[in-house]
Amino acid sequence: MNKLLTALLGITSGLLVSTLFFSDIGKKNDQTATTDGNYASVAQKVYVPHGKKDEYYLMSSGGHSGQLQVYGVPSMRLIRNVPVFSVDSATGYGYDADSKKMMGGYTWGDFHHPAISETNGDYDGQFLFANDVANNRIAAVDLTYFHTTDIVKLPNEGGPHAAVFLTPNTEYIVAPTRFARPLGDEYAPLDNYKEKYKGIVSMVKFDRASKKLALDFQIVLPPWSYDLSDAGKKMSDGWVVMTTYNTEFATTNPEINASQKDRDYIVMINWKKLSEDVAAGKAKDYKGVRMIDPRDVEGAIYAIPVAKSPHGVDVTPDGSRFVASGKLAPLMTVFSFQKAFDAIAKKDFVANEFGIPVLKYEDVMEREVDPPGALGPLHTQFDDRGNAFNTMFISSEVVKWKVDTGEVIDRQPVYYSPGHATAAEGDTVSPDGTYLIAGNKIAKDNFLSVGPSHPESADLFDISGDKMVHLTNVPIQPEPHYSQMIKADKIHAKPIYDKDENRPNSVWSINDARIERKGNEVHVYGVALRSKYIFDAKAERKDAITVKQGDHVFLHITNIDLDQDITHGLQVMDYNLNMEMQPGQTSTMDFVANKSGVFPIYCTNFCSALHQEMSGYLLVQPQ
Amino acid sequence: MNKLLTALLGITSGLLVSTLFFSDIGKKNDQTATTDGNYASVAQKVYVPHGKKDEYYLMSSGGHSGQLQVYGVPSMRLIRNVPVFSVDSATGYGYDADSKKMMGGYTWGDFHHPAISETNGDYDGQFLFANDVANNRIAAVDLTYFHTTDIVKLPNEGGPHAAVFLTPNTEYIVAPTRFARPLGDEYAPLDNYKEKYKGIVSMVKFDRASKKLALDFQIVLPPWSYDLSDAGKKMSDGWVVMTTYNTEFATTNPEINASQKDRDYIVMINWKKLSEDVAAGKAKDYKGVRMIDPRDVEGAIYAIPVAKSPHGVDVTPDGSRFVASGKLAPLMTVFSFQKAFDAIAKKDFVANEFGIPVLKYEDVMEREVDPPGALGPLHTQFDDRGNAFNTMFISSEVVKWKVDTGEVIDRQPVYYSPGHATAAEGDTVSPDGTYLIAGNKIAKDNFLSVGPSHPESADLFDISGDKMVHLTNVPIQPEPHYSQMIKADKIHAKPIYDKDENRPNSVWSINDARIERKGNEVHVYGVALRSKYIFDAKAERKDAITVKQGDHVFLHITNIDLDQDITHGLQVMDYNLNMEMQPGQTSTMDFVANKSGVFPIYCTNFCSALHQEMSGYLLVQPQ
Repeated sequence: MNKLLTALLGITSGLLVSTLFFSDIGKKNDQTATTDGNYASVAQKVYVPHGKKDEYYLMSSGGHSGQLQVYGVPSMRLIRNVPVFSVDSATGYGYDADSKKMMGGYTWGDFHHPAISETNGDYDGQFLFANDVANNRIAAVDLTYFHTTDIVKLPNEGGPHAAVFLTPNTEYIVAPTRFARPLGDEYAPLDNYKEKYKGIVSMVKFDRASKKLALDFQIVLPPWSYDLSDAGKKMSDGWVVMTTYNTEFATTNPEINASQKDRDYIVMINWKKLSEDVAAGKAKDYKGVRMIDPRDVEGAIYAIPVAKSPHGVDVTPDGSRFVASGKLAPLMTVFSFQKAFDAIAKKDFVANEFGIPVLKYEDVMEREVDPPGALGPLHTQFDDRGNAFNTMFISSEVVKWKVDTGEVIDRQPVYYSPGHATAAEGDTVSPDGTYLIAGNKIAKDNFLSVGPSHPESADLFDISGDKMVHLTNVPIQPEPHYSQMIKADKIHAKPIYDKDENRPNSVWSINDARIERKGNEVHVYGVALRSKYIFDAKAERKDAITVKQGDHVFLHITNIDLDQDITHGLQVMDYNLNMEMQPGQTSTMDFVANKSGVFPIYCTNFCSALHQEMSGYLLVQPQ
Repeated sequence: MNKLLTALLGITSGLLVSTLFFSDIGKKNDQTATTDGNYASVAQKVYVPHGKKDEYYLMSSGGHSGQLQVYGVPSMRLIRNVPVFSVDSATGYGYDADSKKMMGGYTWGDFHHPAISETNGDYDGQFLFANDVANNRIAAVDLTYFHTTDIVKLPNEGGPHAAVFLTPNTEYIVAPTRFARPLGDEYAPLDNYKEKYKGIVSMVKFDRASKKLALDFQIVLPPWSYDLSDAGKKMSDGWVVMTTYNTEFATTNPEINASQKDRDYIVMINWKKLSEDVAAGKAKDYKGVRMIDPRDVEGAIYAIPVAKSPHGVDVTPDGSRFVASGKLAPLMTVFSFQKAFDAIAKKDFVANEFGIPVLKYEDVMEREVDPPGALGPLHTQFDDRGNAFNTMFISSEVVKWKVDTGEVIDRQPVYYSPGHATAAEGDTVSPDGTYLIAGNKIAKDNFLSVGPSHPESADLFDISGDKMVHLTNVPIQPEPHYSQMIKADKIHAKPIYDKDENRPNSVWSINDARIERKGNEVHVYGVALRSKYIFDAKAERKDAITVKQGDHVFLHITNIDLDQDITHGLQVMDYNLNMEMQPGQTSTMDFVANKSGVFPIYCTNFCSALHQEMSGYLLVQPQ
């Protein structure tokens, strides 16, 4: 066990190493704008007055909240919680019929890594994808409406933690597994781990027209754990790189047992070749999934030794190098794609693991960067001037260094224990070099106390100069696993839904509102408008629905107020039901009216001065 | 139909009146700090640098999100979403056994009006109460831990919208109904509305030691709709006042039909007398609830005519007056408690409604305040210098006026359509007079667009001077029905749970971790610590749980890391389960292991450098 590991395990016994390191770094940086008491200049830089807007959208991971959180930068104000994997009564997500069906019986997810759709390696602002580590799902969010349009379940995976990352034209959404598991939900004891457990990479396709996801094929890798990954671009387009840990095959106490070896691997995959191989029939079918094994193909999958237990690998904007950060090795390693290609051409392999040729570390490595005292590098981001920025989990800082030379240019403390960093347009071929955000895991006593569970925190830096300027430290909602920052003018959000008269179940005229019975099904085709519901235009009480106990009731409601920001809600009292209809939207909610009595219906989205009067009744006659 | 109503109904046809009014007001106030482009001074006033903290907690309604949102003032940063009525996977609320049971089968609520517990009419910072309008519930939140400790279901109610408000020593949490309904969940057609439907006020008690709520008794009122309400204090202690609308008994299209009469009522109730009457046996039992009818008691319930369809009534800090804001009458009316007491003593009644004597408007009214062009007054707050502040929904502004004289002192625009206002310590006997927040219902294009559904917004004002100074306009999460602002030093939150060795199911030593079988129940008494789970200290794999398909599994896990901000999570893959264990907390989650296979368990709260390694397995052997 090396010294660093000993130090890390010290954390377990209650010693928060980060505090110690922070104390030193804090002193070094006493002159930073936000800690010297003279913060007028930075205050103005994060203040967005009424009438102006933020410069960037921050699309931030909601972690175990399951949702996408949208912040504005530089104000760092939370603009919107967009439901993706978890139910959200605020929007009726998981209550209305469409979203409930899409969620597939799950009520939550563990949203880790958002990725904005790319065209030519640049964020195109059309869609966003994310992974649910807990329940093995990938979701697509339409950034025109900020609505989740599809969720796909990935079989054979054990938590697609190392997801999602995209190839430069969104050809594939790549999702490597975190835990190896037996294929097909089979049971196999842990004693059979090396034989029966597999490490799966899912290659998912997305169709922009239908807004649907589909699993294309899976790659069967050794039962290692896969961590964060990135796709090649420009000269390395066609390849992906992904880090591994637990190449020790530990099946218990991974804190110790998965940290034994000095090196794990980076797996380097030629996805273009594999895609061709699959098209050429080289994949095997397993329960309806096309699966490809390294042993059945050649020239597509390689491994490169890397400093132990890396948390991730990131490709430079020009696509020439990839940087791995070893959370248990206090250094960043720069690898060269060209060197890797050369080593592959030479077939200069040092080993073979499960059919995967292993390249020599020295052949592919270009440089190790090891700033003194900088511990726990987790994630690398880039600016437009050849610099890299690394978050240091243990020493609680961001280190700026030059990719070409390894020269360390600046170090700034963060508050505290940063996971990912996010640079403006940071994962594209042309980062902006304006802002950098550290997504921190620990807030300690940064903010007003809200009991034993604290918010996470984030630090915003201005990175436009040589030295980073700390602008603000803010509370942030769980869990800032990763985020992407996109220039505001790349998002083209629609303020209202089109008035689509062909939309199923939509009603656009008050006079067309009606209630239809089909056996024990009652279908209400209604409208919502300021400030009333019309469920049945022909009835004496147009805002009442009368059914018999046991009827299956479908409420199809169209919001015919085609005005920006006039969303209506609809709840049915005591029935645990709520949905919303955004301007021009038709929503459906169905339920069995199993309780008799009188159940007021009212609008849950404040919509007008007479919002309080926007109500009606569900009357359920006893059987 | 008067002119104002005509104007309001204009909104329905798509004319956003607020825009028109705002345009004018905006021009009048072009010199305000945040709209003239020179905002350095205000930027610094809302900037809270690292190392400093906000001055106030804003306890903000989450509306149909069901949750409590805690912001810091003046930064307006969202610190924490505290789950109350809705499930929240981020904290495991609704997934762990205790919270799941407390929620009573509901997965969401409509959280409207938070109220901090009071002692001698002052916020004491110990607890917070809130209402679920949709599913007729009241909740208590412990502000030491920011955890919901109890939820009570209120029978006979039709949405306790006009809740919660507290008597000055939290003797009662008062919850009047919004919709009249038949008692006891009975079915009765709307044609029998006046006879069969009742307007209920619930009087709920709270025990600070057990942290539990209990319905004490209900008051049976006419089938009017009840809106916001307040409790008397000082000279008016013992009384509550509540507004009504729909004294027309409309059962359809309330937008029109509940707005016919020029006056509705304020109901004034002597809760101390009613409490004594109930203790003296004057209440009738109805399905286990003690219910008291105005016709059975004397001298406790009165009605006062008020300008039509008021949204609420607020008692001045000295307890001498109450101010009603008529959303369909463009004025605020100041009533005098002393005048009301005198009128009651004279028995000078103009009518009797369902056994309730009606006082003369002129006898109780002290003054009408009608600032020209100020439309849609919704809510009144107070400072420490005799001033009142009213939000104007339709003209989108805050109006400051002197309670003693009705003199209008200042008007400032807000962005847009404010519902409630919240002054610092605003509902206490001694408001601070420092900050005021307008909780706005409409944001229009204030912020980066997130599609057809927008965030709500809030405006923060400095009200320490004669004129209000607009500090910032920020996006805010749904739905800012109401909030309370409490001085930060009044909250005494605990950073960790006590190490309570007598706590059921807790385990404090790694060596005590064990798995016990009782028939088909499997109880895991485990610990979580950086960076591992120990489920069974005696097993070869201490972090694995092996059960048989169909077993009922109970996970009782104690977080033995007694360090601030070290919360651990636990999810069971593909089982749709997640819970958290805050520092020193024991949490239980139970489920039937109905799927066979291998299900990784991992920590969902980033806790240490080796958080990624904090994992284990649930192995479910096939039947």
